[in-house]
Amino acid sequence: MSGVDRSPDRIARAGLSRVVEPGDPAAMSAFEGLSPVETWAALRRGGEALRDWAARVAAARPDRDLDTMQSLGGRFVIPGDDEWPEQIEVLAQTGEVNRRGGLPFGLWVRGPSDLRTVTGSRSVAVVGARACTSYGEHVSGELAAGLADKGVTVLSGGAYGIDAAAHRGALAASGVTVAVLACGVDVSYPKGNAALFDRIAGSGLVVSELPPGCSPTRLRFLARNRLIAALTDGTVVVEAAVRSGALNTASWADRCHRAVMAVPGPVTSATSHGAHILVRERCAVLVTGVADIVEAISPMGEQLTAYPRGAERATDRLSDLALRVLDAVPVLVAVPEQNIGRTAGLAAESVRAGLMELTRSGLVEQIGSGWRLSAARREQVG
Amino acid sequence: MSGVDRSPDRIARAGLSRVVEPGDPAAMSAFEGLSPVETWAALRRGGEALRDWAARVAAARPDRDLDTMQSLGGRFVIPGDDEWPEQIEVLAQTGEVNRRGGLPFGLWVRGPSDLRTVTGSRSVAVVGARACTSYGEHVSGELAAGLADKGVTVLSGGAYGIDAAAHRGALAASGVTVAVLACGVDVSYPKGNAALFDRIAGSGLVVSELPPGCSPTRLRFLARNRLIAALTDGTVVVEAAVRSGALNTASWADRCHRAVMAVPGPVTSATSHGAHILVRERCAVLVTGVADIVEAISPMGEQLTAYPRGAERATDRLSDLALRVLDAVPVLVAVPEQNIGRTAGLAAESVRAGLMELTRSGLVEQIGSGWRLSAARREQVG
Repeated sequence: MSGVDRSPDRIARAGLSRVVEPGDPAAMSAFEGLSPVETWAALRRGGEALRDWAARVAAARPDRDLDTMQSLGGRFVIPGDDEWPEQIEVLAQTGEVNRRGGLPFGLWVRGPSDLRTVTGSRSVAVVGARACTSYGEHVSGELAAGLADKGVTVLSGGAYGIDAAAHRGALAASGVTVAVLACGVDVSYPKGNAALFDRIAGSGLVVSELPPGCSPTRLRFLARNRLIAALTDGTVVVEAAVRSGALNTASWADRCHRAVMAVPGPVTSATSHGAHILVRERCAVLVTGVADIVEAISPMGEQLTAYPRGAERATDRLSDLALRVLDAVPVLVAVPEQNIGRTAGLAAESVRAGLMELTRSGLVEQIGSGWRLSAARREQVG
Repeated sequence: MSGVDRSPDRIARAGLSRVVEPGDPAAMSAFEGLSPVETWAALRRGGEALRDWAARVAAARPDRDLDTMQSLGGRFVIPGDDEWPEQIEVLAQTGEVNRRGGLPFGLWVRGPSDLRTVTGSRSVAVVGARACTSYGEHVSGELAAGLADKGVTVLSGGAYGIDAAAHRGALAASGVTVAVLACGVDVSYPKGNAALFDRIAGSGLVVSELPPGCSPTRLRFLARNRLIAALTDGTVVVEAAVRSGALNTASWADRCHRAVMAVPGPVTSATSHGAHILVRERCAVLVTGVADIVEAISPMGEQLTAYPRGAERATDRLSDLALRVLDAVPVLVAVPEQNIGRTAGLAAESVRAGLMELTRSGLVEQIGSGWRLSAARREQVG
């Protein structure tokens, strides 16, 4: 396997991704100021202060991991590579203040798409509860398909429920979708989504900061969420319990200065509480469809959603006088002007002026000496 | 009928409420600067400029309207009366800029409650679509009952759908509810709610700015909405189409500096679009229950809703080291420290320190020389 670049930087980063837990704060403070190559060299030298990593360092075979990845049809993408998604570097500022923050050493990537291209133009994370409702599943699938239709890449976490529905929706629309996992890109977790991961890797991408073969852990899920948030222009929470991975992703999106969006649902549904809290606390904008999402991830003022005012009504431009006369004109049985004046509380001249305006607008018609609504107006008021 | 006060001001206002359409901008500019008594006198004198009102003035019998009202067990409440709801005077500033704005001449009131008392302490308008869904009906009924339980008066417009469900919910909780109509308080519109209006008038109030016998018109509905908004501390929109009376009431609430609230629903339901737009455009705060509403209508900082963070978890206060060890401890089959160290990627001393912290927190237990989750923790991760 000769095609794989084996620069010291790549070897060091591959080794570190095997040895250091994603976003490990102890590692971050121990190796502060050192380059990956220097860190890797220090770990290989060992010593009492680095004893927590000793067993993993001894077992690590970064060159073999790179080969394995190549045999899976994948690669290990690191800073400086053409495919490196530069927007992820926003995470460099999150290492110190947050548990499980910081930049990944690199990204293990499986699939034919170019990570930088598909996440760098326009991309959205659609995330939510594993135990979602059929409403949530429907909505996330529809949103993902609609986003894919507009050329927006859909990222999610590959979990059951909302995540899977989002991936499937994007695939159904022949769009690009990216699954960011908390385990190796060759590990199917959850097992029930194995076929889905293969479909995703067939056209889009499966991505992880963990090398091949790694299993997911709770802390790896939390660390993974920061990658989903940082890679995308915005995160949409479809259904989420009050404490959930989806809300964790939303809070990472906020820290990364990305758009945070939430889809409302019935207030009687506990799975929508997380989304409602995000909106109520002004942590997220409420979105109801693809247009809202595209507006939220677009530069200020572009792609503004047309405010759905409803069709303009025939009465919108009438004078107040005409409106009052119109209110007094019967639907079917034509009546004389005097009756209209009595009902509207208006003098004969005013009624006449109003009827003239209404005739010009096509809202009333004269039958003999009486007046009633025009056929067109009768249809409008149904 | 001798009990009815017949001061010139009351007679003039009763007459004006019969003759001048609610919020009529032509009347407002014609009578600007005149008191009700002066306006009424001018109308009785008549003249070319006032011809639109002539027929109604000739027919008006304000003294008889007052008698009719008394025989219905009601009254005509005007500024200066003990029962006059002073908060409504916020409408005095809305006459010039808005169609159908301005203060009413008085309020025709039927029912045993005191209008000032029941709307002046804490009151909320619950409004929405006539053609609502069963979800909307359920939610508005539940909210109204919950508000009534907390001593909050529920106002609405007496229409089918959300309005009726809100009135019924408040009545079911033995609360006070007020129907503000666009017709006389002795007119049952819609007819199907006649029994409901009688129940409301039996304990709460039926209110209108129109004298007995008046029929509703489209413009009277629009004018009526301003009263609902101005009388209450806030307006809750439960389900509303994009152009609807409920949104009109919400916009009046905003102009009156009252809280504007909206209940979300499925994005797949057209009847929730109006509520979603209000939230999306930041015209309304999203509310999901009674607590949210009470917070929104309470003075800043009082009655803050507890942010539902979910129960604190046993793991919330653990060190990062302990979290990593915990992630590596098996659920059932106890394993030795070395295995845990291998899984967690930690040295023996670190594993021991982590296990000690976890034992203190009651999360793990030692079985012989091995470790597994404690019974309590097993239940938590279930």
